[in-house]
Amino acid sequence: MPYFDAASAAPLHPVARQALLASLDEGWADPARLYREGRRARLLLDAAREAAAEAVGCRPDELVFTPSGTRAVHAGISGALAGRRRVGNRLVVSAVEHSSVLHAGETHAAAGGTVTEVPVGRSGAVDADAFAEALGEGTALACLQSANHEVGTEQPVAQVAEACRAAGVPLLVDAAQSLGWGPVDGGWSLLTASAHKWGGPAGVGLLAVRKGVRFAPQGPSDERESGRAPGFENLPAIVAAAASLRAVRAEAAAEGARLRALVDRIRARVPELVPDVEVVGDPVHRLPHLVTFSCLYVDGETLLSELDREGFSVSSGSSCTSSTLTPSHVLRAMGVLSEGNVRVSLPAGTAAEDVDRFLAVLPGVVAGVRERLGAPGAAPSAAAPSGSLVVDSLGKRCPIPVIELAKVIGDVPVGGTVTVLSDDEAARLDIPAWCEMRGQEYVGASPSPGGGTAYVVRRAS
Amino acid sequence: MPYFDAASAAPLHPVARQALLASLDEGWADPARLYREGRRARLLLDAAREAAAEAVGCRPDELVFTPSGTRAVHAGISGALAGRRRVGNRLVVSAVEHSSVLHAGETHAAAGGTVTEVPVGRSGAVDADAFAEALGEGTALACLQSANHEVGTEQPVAQVAEACRAAGVPLLVDAAQSLGWGPVDGGWSLLTASAHKWGGPAGVGLLAVRKGVRFAPQGPSDERESGRAPGFENLPAIVAAAASLRAVRAEAAAEGARLRALVDRIRARVPELVPDVEVVGDPVHRLPHLVTFSCLYVDGETLLSELDREGFSVSSGSSCTSSTLTPSHVLRAMGVLSEGNVRVSLPAGTAAEDVDRFLAVLPGVVAGVRERLGAPGAAPSAAAPSGSLVVDSLGKRCPIPVIELAKVIGDVPVGGTVTVLSDDEAARLDIPAWCEMRGQEYVGASPSPGGGTAYVVRRAS
Repeated sequence: MPYFDAASAAPLHPVARQALLASLDEGWADPARLYREGRRARLLLDAAREAAAEAVGCRPDELVFTPSGTRAVHAGISGALAGRRRVGNRLVVSAVEHSSVLHAGETHAAAGGTVTEVPVGRSGAVDADAFAEALGEGTALACLQSANHEVGTEQPVAQVAEACRAAGVPLLVDAAQSLGWGPVDGGWSLLTASAHKWGGPAGVGLLAVRKGVRFAPQGPSDERESGRAPGFENLPAIVAAAASLRAVRAEAAAEGARLRALVDRIRARVPELVPDVEVVGDPVHRLPHLVTFSCLYVDGETLLSELDREGFSVSSGSSCTSSTLTPSHVLRAMGVLSEGNVRVSLPAGTAAEDVDRFLAVLPGVVAGVRERLGAPGAAPSAAAPSGSLVVDSLGKRCPIPVIELAKVIGDVPVGGTVTVLSDDEAARLDIPAWCEMRGQEYVGASPSPGGGTAYVVRRAS
Repeated sequence: MPYFDAASAAPLHPVARQALLASLDEGWADPARLYREGRRARLLLDAAREAAAEAVGCRPDELVFTPSGTRAVHAGISGALAGRRRVGNRLVVSAVEHSSVLHAGETHAAAGGTVTEVPVGRSGAVDADAFAEALGEGTALACLQSANHEVGTEQPVAQVAEACRAAGVPLLVDAAQSLGWGPVDGGWSLLTASAHKWGGPAGVGLLAVRKGVRFAPQGPSDERESGRAPGFENLPAIVAAAASLRAVRAEAAAEGARLRALVDRIRARVPELVPDVEVVGDPVHRLPHLVTFSCLYVDGETLLSELDREGFSVSSGSSCTSSTLTPSHVLRAMGVLSEGNVRVSLPAGTAAEDVDRFLAVLPGVVAGVRERLGAPGAAPSAAAPSGSLVVDSLGKRCPIPVIELAKVIGDVPVGGTVTVLSDDEAARLDIPAWCEMRGQEYVGASPSPGGGTAYVVRRAS
């Protein structure tokens, strides 16, 4: 049963399992105590910190363990912002950061701070110059992920770090998706990561803060983890996290190349096998194991459920698979299609045969979903031109508005317009994306008198 | 090698180990995902929540898992205070709460809030009426531990809960030390606990918030754990925590009675075997497995290290074993001797022979430390009366000031005074405690012109 959602959580690496088991026996005591069980725990903790620091590329006393990557991000952002409170209260982030970064930004904004989002291009990357320009007066902290968790695009971290250095602004790099593959290049100031993304156990995050970075931990603290992560250390998991990071790093070059080839196969074959698909994310500057594509006329939730039935576990940034009913903020920021969105992220050791079987199964699954939804064929028919048309899709969810648009575009003459009335947030993204994919002209959107939004599309071909 | 520090961390219960191993395989995926690995993780999480809620005595939707007991306390206090911001900003706590509660109080005070500490008697318990009186105008939250972590004294939680109910103030009970022994009686509003105290793994705390309690989680949150504990759930550890809580509860009555008898033996025998010892904490209303005593003329660090050499792992609230160089806030609040302090907390399964061996070894260890420090004999000699004396102990650490006092008390006549000059914080507690133990009169303390504090003692016998 192939699991293709390593970007959410990777199965436990055998080394992590082994280290966890060993340290359940050796590392359950309080490392702050002076008796032998405590000293043993302290030795394990120190060794784990050294191993993790070496993999991160920092000094052991710059690195603390947190209960999760999310908590590392929250503590890193709040501590760095507070440490530079006198400089200003501006936080600069890319528009495609992990939700933990954006949530920390929301908290900062609610407390009166300013958050500036740097937009990304259609590949999902920020422009380093644009990022540099955003580092205006009063910027206390900048955040940029090493690589995007939904589309795999690598960010220009080294260039942005250089710009931050020039501007005197510390840069926090969320390396959750990439740390298992290698250290983060460039002169970052703070770095965060999450062990269960590289095959370590849940319950462990990393927060590195370079010496010299002003940092004032927020909230109650205690004497543990340099006052930056209160609460009893989750030692067996920390030991397992450090051991598995070392292990995956040793395998990273070879396994990365192998998975990169499998992802290249998916990137190349999916558009050949499935009509009306958009593969998103940078084709070259990307994580080795992750690929994302979106399928027109398909709803993400049904697609995931059908793939699950076929034995494939993948995730989706489509609105209909989320509780918020809005498409993923990453796909929105990129301006790409969100309907029928599928993220495939291969765990280490994924067999080529499983990828081939996925490619064999996918076309039929997509076709089946489309058929049930009454999706149009690959090309619209060119029948009965009639000037302009209005399609009322109010109350209908993604992908129905796009399907209804596609069904009638052939009913207007070239130069004629179709107006789609929709109150589904996904339409805002997916109707323009459909136009771009199908060579039609997206005219614009305006509030509709009867509720929802009117999207106007002009038939171009 | 007997480990007698279960109150810091208990070794992993076999059921916890077994559940952890099983859920490493079954519970590593994201419980928020819809594919089979995610659904399986969700089932495990739901079952763990139900089991934990049953043990706590609340509804499953009232309970969330946090990364530690400390984090549960921090989240519970900040959320409850924020939820009742309109009522007022007063936090009422007992003076002997766990440091996580006091640290949360410090953060509250630093943000402009008020913290009222309710004092305790010499047994370590608050007076329920005094606690009720402290619930004045503008009290947003009250906190009371179920039982003290350093001396084992049970608090009158049910009576205080009733007083809180009458005053319309929610009560947070830190049940970290007692939850493995049984549910907390009385009408608490919030409850916190920590799995590694009952033999569960590190990395798991519990926060229960009764329906109807106003609660506004602070800091960034996400969709996990009802928005009260952000970050990927530490599922294998959560499963192990819940399973072991159920297991220790099944054994609690029998094992509690057995350990209570062993602790009674320690309480009775230590003062018989070791001269100048004070056993502290309530002799009856106490945790079954925990006993604390202090030995005059001994420094805690050396005592712990000598006991460790003999194979016994215990902890201490003496100033010389802590990084703060002040005695434990619990012993201070109780007004009892802190020097030579030893806490023995027996893990489940402790053999009676190990306790007997501890009792056999202790007298020699204490006598050895005393001899090396030049401690006086059991009774002061009554030689060469000379009116009054001043002892300069400036720059000397606990227990030297008390030793020097004891050495010269016999040099003054009955009615004469000894003035001890000391800049050691422990003296403030230990000199009065020594007077009470030795039947001498403690006159008082005042700043000494040459630095430190002058403690005046009148020879009474």
